[in-house]
Amino acid sequence: MTGMRPALSLLASLLCVTSLVGHAQDRPAASIHGFVPARLDAQRALEARFDAQVSTANLKAWLTQLAGRPHHAGSPHGKANVDFMAGLLRDWGYQVEITQYDVLFPTPTLRRLELVAPTTFSARLAEPALAEDALSKLQAEALPTFNMYSIDGDVTGDLVYVNYGVPADYEALERRGIDVRGKIVIARYGGSWRGIKPKVAAEHGAIGCLIYSDPRDDGYGQGDVYPKGGYRNEHSAQRGSVSDMPVYPGDPLTPGVAAKGGVTRPEFTKAQTLTKIPVLPISYADARPLLEALGGPMAPAAWRGGLPIPYHVGPGPARVRLQLAFDWKLVPAYNVIATLPGREFPDQWVVRGNHHDGWVAGATDPVSGMVAVLEEARVIGQLARTGWTPRRTLVFAAWDAEEPGLLGSTEWVEDVADTLRAKVVAYVNSDSNARGFFDAGGSHSLERLVNEIARDVPDPKVKGSVADRLLARTILQGSADERRLARDQRHFEIDALGSGSDYTPFLQHLGIASLNIGFGGEGEYGQYHSAYDSVDHYLRFQDPDLAYAAALAKVGGRAVLRLSEADLLPFDFTRSADRIGRYVDELGDLVKTLDSDTREHNTRLAEGAFTLAANPAETWIAPKKKDDVPEFDLEPLRQAVERLRVAARRFETAAQTTSDVPASALTAANAIVFQAERTLTRPEGLPRRPWFRHQVYAPGFYTGYGVKTLPAVREALEQRAWDEARAQIPIVAQTLERYAGEIERAASVLAR
Amino acid sequence: MTGMRPALSLLASLLCVTSLVGHAQDRPAASIHGFVPARLDAQRALEARFDAQVSTANLKAWLTQLAGRPHHAGSPHGKANVDFMAGLLRDWGYQVEITQYDVLFPTPTLRRLELVAPTTFSARLAEPALAEDALSKLQAEALPTFNMYSIDGDVTGDLVYVNYGVPADYEALERRGIDVRGKIVIARYGGSWRGIKPKVAAEHGAIGCLIYSDPRDDGYGQGDVYPKGGYRNEHSAQRGSVSDMPVYPGDPLTPGVAAKGGVTRPEFTKAQTLTKIPVLPISYADARPLLEALGGPMAPAAWRGGLPIPYHVGPGPARVRLQLAFDWKLVPAYNVIATLPGREFPDQWVVRGNHHDGWVAGATDPVSGMVAVLEEARVIGQLARTGWTPRRTLVFAAWDAEEPGLLGSTEWVEDVADTLRAKVVAYVNSDSNARGFFDAGGSHSLERLVNEIARDVPDPKVKGSVADRLLARTILQGSADERRLARDQRHFEIDALGSGSDYTPFLQHLGIASLNIGFGGEGEYGQYHSAYDSVDHYLRFQDPDLAYAAALAKVGGRAVLRLSEADLLPFDFTRSADRIGRYVDELGDLVKTLDSDTREHNTRLAEGAFTLAANPAETWIAPKKKDDVPEFDLEPLRQAVERLRVAARRFETAAQTTSDVPASALTAANAIVFQAERTLTRPEGLPRRPWFRHQVYAPGFYTGYGVKTLPAVREALEQRAWDEARAQIPIVAQTLERYAGEIERAASVLAR
Repeated sequence: MTGMRPALSLLASLLCVTSLVGHAQDRPAASIHGFVPARLDAQRALEARFDAQVSTANLKAWLTQLAGRPHHAGSPHGKANVDFMAGLLRDWGYQVEITQYDVLFPTPTLRRLELVAPTTFSARLAEPALAEDALSKLQAEALPTFNMYSIDGDVTGDLVYVNYGVPADYEALERRGIDVRGKIVIARYGGSWRGIKPKVAAEHGAIGCLIYSDPRDDGYGQGDVYPKGGYRNEHSAQRGSVSDMPVYPGDPLTPGVAAKGGVTRPEFTKAQTLTKIPVLPISYADARPLLEALGGPMAPAAWRGGLPIPYHVGPGPARVRLQLAFDWKLVPAYNVIATLPGREFPDQWVVRGNHHDGWVAGATDPVSGMVAVLEEARVIGQLARTGWTPRRTLVFAAWDAEEPGLLGSTEWVEDVADTLRAKVVAYVNSDSNARGFFDAGGSHSLERLVNEIARDVPDPKVKGSVADRLLARTILQGSADERRLARDQRHFEIDALGSGSDYTPFLQHLGIASLNIGFGGEGEYGQYHSAYDSVDHYLRFQDPDLAYAAALAKVGGRAVLRLSEADLLPFDFTRSADRIGRYVDELGDLVKTLDSDTREHNTRLAEGAFTLAANPAETWIAPKKKDDVPEFDLEPLRQAVERLRVAARRFETAAQTTSDVPASALTAANAIVFQAERTLTRPEGLPRRPWFRHQVYAPGFYTGYGVKTLPAVREALEQRAWDEARAQIPIVAQTLERYAGEIERAASVLAR
Repeated sequence: MTGMRPALSLLASLLCVTSLVGHAQDRPAASIHGFVPARLDAQRALEARFDAQVSTANLKAWLTQLAGRPHHAGSPHGKANVDFMAGLLRDWGYQVEITQYDVLFPTPTLRRLELVAPTTFSARLAEPALAEDALSKLQAEALPTFNMYSIDGDVTGDLVYVNYGVPADYEALERRGIDVRGKIVIARYGGSWRGIKPKVAAEHGAIGCLIYSDPRDDGYGQGDVYPKGGYRNEHSAQRGSVSDMPVYPGDPLTPGVAAKGGVTRPEFTKAQTLTKIPVLPISYADARPLLEALGGPMAPAAWRGGLPIPYHVGPGPARVRLQLAFDWKLVPAYNVIATLPGREFPDQWVVRGNHHDGWVAGATDPVSGMVAVLEEARVIGQLARTGWTPRRTLVFAAWDAEEPGLLGSTEWVEDVADTLRAKVVAYVNSDSNARGFFDAGGSHSLERLVNEIARDVPDPKVKGSVADRLLARTILQGSADERRLARDQRHFEIDALGSGSDYTPFLQHLGIASLNIGFGGEGEYGQYHSAYDSVDHYLRFQDPDLAYAAALAKVGGRAVLRLSEADLLPFDFTRSADRIGRYVDELGDLVKTLDSDTREHNTRLAEGAFTLAANPAETWIAPKKKDDVPEFDLEPLRQAVERLRVAARRFETAAQTTSDVPASALTAANAIVFQAERTLTRPEGLPRRPWFRHQVYAPGFYTGYGVKTLPAVREALEQRAWDEARAQIPIVAQTLERYAGEIERAASVLAR
């Protein structure tokens, strides 16, 4: 309790600072979170020197180089890119390591899709070369359109259209008396991560799965199609992994361990994350004849897409044959890891990464982000040659084999897990980038850091900072709460992270506080995972002058430099506590909603409302009675949140005293602060997916990339696994208590 | 105050009845509103005899007869239908009059639409004959696709896509820097009544207007197209009137007076309700090349329809030439008016009507409703020949020339207005009918009548009454309030009437309480106002066995028989008071919303949010600052509503005593009761449109068919005409006070 006295005496100045920041119109902001006043000017000067050296010419040159040819994992140009980047980084003064993991990378030896009844049609399954696109002419070295980690298969069956192919869609089909057992489903992209679609289809007994890009969501429904405009044309298909990534990412054959040396690999068919049925992505030109041949009831209004046809669900008379075979080979995945040792805290690492492999040439995904990371590394390398050395160790990483399922990053994280757990302060990820609005997701303890950075980086095309634009959009489109936050505190919130890029192993396997950053929303991006994600496309439709790649470098560079140079690491647990508190409130709301929906459903059933309102001319199967929702005691979670809030306030107050705190105490506090996120993990992981250890953030078991917060409880409730939910509540509460305990400890150290 | 004593003593039994009805599972309900217990059995027996005689064979035979050929106003088959129906009605014992009005009915002599740049295309403007549809082969006698009361014109201009063409759409265009002055707009059907589109286009300076049926809203987006399915095919276009009907319906040359005898008609070009610019409706096959040729920005996401193209707004490079010329002739419009005089109250008329003219053959619109009215008349004629005579006078009407703008009904109403004002108890309208859910709109004093009828008519295809199905759908789809009403009181609400069918002159010009009834929602109706609205279509896709036409006859027949036979006319002012109270509350909410939206808008403008969030690569024009919303004193309206509520309760209580009330008092009360709705009109009408006299219900000046309740105040607020809104509040309040006064008077008469 003695520790509270200096903190309290500083409360007034704290409030004053908050208020000042809240209404600050002068930019850059007067203070930078984590820096003592005496070091502010030096940091600002450092960031100004950084900004001044960021070169769009470099960005463009590297984009052209790296994305000049197809460069998937195991490809010659992929390896050339690795060597090229490693060479650059060495030249810039980094210690560079190229790590190699040998990972399962099946590529197609047979892809055939035919409509066999009532008419016949053979799908093209190819993206034609275009005069306007140099890359599209290099098809010989490109991966064709396919979904990686689909199993081999030769299946023939009646077709059923399943909308997005999520569980609710199958319920809607069941109401219409439609069963997909023994049938081939066709789902449109969207509504979930693609890997969920074959998983749920197989759970319902389907024998094959097609996934197509509907032109309303991804095609002419968005704008002019390529090459006239930037959107997906009729022959373009979205490649992508369909592994069961919510179970574990990385090499399917080596979960939890590095795919190298003498690691024991099972028979590939035993890999847990392969699909259970064959899956193929197709274009809307290939999908149209199939969908057009469907009979049966009309699809529900919300399922109808942009093809000029009535969308029926089937089953049949459309009958299709799908043949797929793969070469189940291993390929080497190469990460480039470049290190600049820290002067004062060499064992505190700030890791900045982006993947380098593309499905084809990946100008947008991932090269647009990769070049920003390279430029950050170059400029920081320059700074380090001109009188400055980072206080902490900086690690720049280029990951390979992200596309098939975060393989490069995951294998490395699994390889050196103990080191990373001990040393990494934070991981800052990027991936695709284009012109538009700044977007960030991540650990909420870093939300304040992100806000301050976004306030200090000018938008390249609009007068104002990238935060100003984001806040303006929030004011126009956000909820009342978000608007208030934007206006009163000039603060924007960041999204929780699910999955979909290389932060996952850091955040969700190891509990390393992470960020994912990028710009976008004003390009014309219809080439996701297609052969047309090319330099030609990028320079016409995404970020013609690389201005937003430069902006990304300025954001990423600042993140690295502030995490590296801070006196007290710029973590803000108040935002974290608030957000976790909101997630707990959401669980309470979820229980209430489940209960009232269940009662309403059962009442409707009892009063015959469903049957009375059903169209007598159509088949309609009444749903089942739902089991009652029991009561749940969320009090342990609420108490943990309360303790967390108090701890966060104590820490925030204590953190105001950094100028007076002895260096040894700061050092001790920092060691606790960056490790705090680790306490949000449990070694046992989540139920049925031990690889995912984070108890606050996880990709949804039935959403894929989409996040589920407090997943152990939330998903149990959503799946109506009442006992599991009840069992998980105290476990999650204990986790939150441990987190609060670490923050208390850090506060005490500071206030000593 | 003495009048209250017996009322209070009966309150307990009143509550008891409400409770019994609220939970009654026995059907038919124990009581019928307006009938003394002693006469209940006789009425039930009468209705049972009515039901027993309703014949689907008749309905089908007349459908086939009336819709066998094109029968627009002035056509040979139209006149044949009039004579046929008049003959039937005479045979059934009615006094039949055929009224003739000579009305402006311009038909096209030239229709030409061409894309003249950047490529050329000549629109087909025709609905081809189909092997599956006999009617489609009779094109020679059919009206072509056109919009009636478009002016002549020959205009050439750049094309602009304006979405639904409502005022908000032009604001969105303005934000994008797009001005339609001197241009031709293309709007899609929907979002407002069609006549609003050229009106708003002309207000914004456009020189021509095309209206097309987008396939998402009206075509393959709904299901299989004709003739495979029932929905609109690519060549089908929606004919329809584009007169400025919210100003006045009926013959454009004779507003307020009958178009007959020596009436003075202005030069046709002087008619106030003609469009200001030429207008033509087109099919989606004709629209596609035009829309596809548009450049400029992408249309906002919500504007994009179902064509397989990116929807741009223009202007140009698409440039079109539209040529239209009409033969501005008069044609005779013939109504059939069949009367069965009442035994006891010959000067109290119950009027039941449906129009008989179609745009082409109109199997659905209007014949499906017309045949039900005929069958009601036939069965009632039979009943009147077998020992029963109606207590009140029954009038069955078949209106001509509804399609061009309610001409037949309006001219008749204007012709014999004084008689109708004095004598008509209520008007019951129908129009199109198909299988599905019962739907009713009308004066809320008749909401209870409609509920009781719907409870007593069984659904022809689903076990339960037509009310049961409607209540079930309300439970599945309604708001929490609607659900509660459905469950606790087994009561459904009816919509307020705007315009779109022949109730308008009765309700909104004369203040005659009106209902509009019909079934629908489970047919496949994609042939609205097309040449394919045929018997073939109807019998395949709308109501194959005419079961729902029979259900309509049972509903309509009951409405007539209950209004005819009631001891106390079945008006329920409590529902009316509640609903008007809600409309007043809505005005309060509207003021609050206008105020908060205005403040938010001006704040956003001041803080630069619009500009910051706009895409710097696109043109974007900041909106203007909005004038502040002043305060409005709605207290006079609230007080009037309170008085109305009290009066309605007094009346309801007094009405429980009908068994004890002397016949003379019932007669006196009835005379007040059916006239009460008249007090909701003002002879001055609404601002700028004196023909519309009802102060509670009116078609919206900028919505067309869509209703605006308490329109004098609501529309003034919506148009930000603050002074007018302020001036209209006391006027509307006085109107409501007069209405309350009449109800008080009726209650006093009953309680005497």
